[in-house]
Amino acid sequence: MSFGYEDIKAAYSRIKPYIRKTPLENSMDLSTDERKYSFKLEPFQTVKSFKIRGAMSKMTTLTEEERQRGVATISSGNHGASVSYAASVLGIEKAQIIVPETTPHAKVDKIRYYGGEALLMGKNYDEAHALGMEYIEKNGMTFIDAYYDDPKIYAGQGTIGIEIFEQDPDIDTIVVPIGGGGLITGIATAAKAIKPDVRIIGVQTEACPAMIKAFEDKVFYEEYPVTGDTVCDALVGGVGKLSYETLEPLLEDIIEVREETIKKAVVHMALNEKFIVEGAGAAALAAVMDEPERVGGKNIVMVVSGGNIDSELFCKLIEEYK
Amino acid sequence: MSFGYEDIKAAYSRIKPYIRKTPLENSMDLSTDERKYSFKLEPFQTVKSFKIRGAMSKMTTLTEEERQRGVATISSGNHGASVSYAASVLGIEKAQIIVPETTPHAKVDKIRYYGGEALLMGKNYDEAHALGMEYIEKNGMTFIDAYYDDPKIYAGQGTIGIEIFEQDPDIDTIVVPIGGGGLITGIATAAKAIKPDVRIIGVQTEACPAMIKAFEDKVFYEEYPVTGDTVCDALVGGVGKLSYETLEPLLEDIIEVREETIKKAVVHMALNEKFIVEGAGAAALAAVMDEPERVGGKNIVMVVSGGNIDSELFCKLIEEYK
Repeated sequence: MSFGYEDIKAAYSRIKPYIRKTPLENSMDLSTDERKYSFKLEPFQTVKSFKIRGAMSKMTTLTEEERQRGVATISSGNHGASVSYAASVLGIEKAQIIVPETTPHAKVDKIRYYGGEALLMGKNYDEAHALGMEYIEKNGMTFIDAYYDDPKIYAGQGTIGIEIFEQDPDIDTIVVPIGGGGLITGIATAAKAIKPDVRIIGVQTEACPAMIKAFEDKVFYEEYPVTGDTVCDALVGGVGKLSYETLEPLLEDIIEVREETIKKAVVHMALNEKFIVEGAGAAALAAVMDEPERVGGKNIVMVVSGGNIDSELFCKLIEEYK
Repeated sequence: MSFGYEDIKAAYSRIKPYIRKTPLENSMDLSTDERKYSFKLEPFQTVKSFKIRGAMSKMTTLTEEERQRGVATISSGNHGASVSYAASVLGIEKAQIIVPETTPHAKVDKIRYYGGEALLMGKNYDEAHALGMEYIEKNGMTFIDAYYDDPKIYAGQGTIGIEIFEQDPDIDTIVVPIGGGGLITGIATAAKAIKPDVRIIGVQTEACPAMIKAFEDKVFYEEYPVTGDTVCDALVGGVGKLSYETLEPLLEDIIEVREETIKKAVVHMALNEKFIVEGAGAAALAAVMDEPERVGGKNIVMVVSGGNIDSELFCKLIEEYK
């Protein structure tokens, strides 16, 4: 499996007509004379998440036969909604999004709203995954990977790296949340090719520091347990294979942040920057809030991955940390 | 004074390099089989408000001599911040923003952050206006009108009309908040030229229905009192002269909405659509919430004018209406 900057450039030309070039917004609140901070705002992306970039990148490469047979994925979150949306934009009629039977109505409605079919299977994510993969194989559909090892997905996420330098060539530090690692691996691959001395800082939640432990222990943690409560649904679980194999040499550092700081960062984004972001989307800011010296840099961008936060959780956080 | 679609097209080519084409975002939450609702999202504009369009439109036409003498305006809100920002982007060194002495620190800081000079004059807005106009004249600076009668300002605001039809040629109804009237007059002029049968619906708050009364009474209300509390700072005061003279024949209707509904609309935008908007920015949605049949249409866009809401007010509204 090979993956490089060329793949990302090719993905960008394929997906450009369908995605938004999201704003790189300077933070008046955080910037000082010494340090300029900006946000790369994927909550303004279509479907309110960067995930559409990867899904669209993959789905724009399907053959006519593959399109006819249809696409499927297993995800109740941003990736599932993105595959549903991308299929309807690209005219792929059969798009099945497999989710656990316990998925909240709002998430199922969202998948259906974008035009895809939501299939409820299994009592939890593990069961949904096992049943789903069997179903997809049996039906000859194309599986749209969320983060495991499909270079076309990684290439789509990496287009954020291209946009960042188009928007500000002087960025010297990019801070990115890590779940499976698709987002940071894509961005780091693009960014290091464009500007070899750029510093890439990963951020994980204390609730699931899978990538940190994988590099420390030199073990590919395909699954990883969650400890305690988390507001970052998008940052839990194991690491992607392609990330595990290629990311480490591209990184300056990985910072583990506290859930408490991530919650405060969600509220800071709402009240000081006027943007609603999901927990994972506030993780990079949390790293800057807790460890500004360790993040370092003079012209720093925090990648805000998405804006799909549950409204009850949002109200609770506002009430608690306003 | 003449003002037409040609002015708006010319403004658009001047300002395009400096402004964002803001998203036209479909509302999953409001749309039904019969009616599709979208938001034109100026909270994502630079400086978080449509006001940058008008300021930039005017300031890109200044002669070298005018640029040397500098620009000034009287506004502690989005317009003042926009003039400050536009001056720094356009390399106009002298930009003075006159505000009342009672202006909150946060607003003064914002003006200064963007590079302009904030001059505190007078105990209230009326005094600031009187002293400010005298000062500007004495110093030979170019006054950047907020909404009174400068066609270049109106033309800038009208560029939203061009973008709406580029983004969705099938829009049949445009709902726009009215303060001084610059925004709706610009949009209506562009929209009616592009699509003569499009329906333009204005919205005013019950706290200051100046335009509604001006048309009813056939009186140019250059000033108009505010009744009771309002969450729409941007929608109070008198009407613009150019609006008063040209807007009425372009309108389908003007709806007066209750402050209570505007507050609920701010919360709806945050919790259901995940966008933080200011009171004025939620006025068009408030009209749709209260009077969907009167708004009518099959493919409706609500213009969301800006996102600069005071954070205490935002928290209070969330707490009250969540």
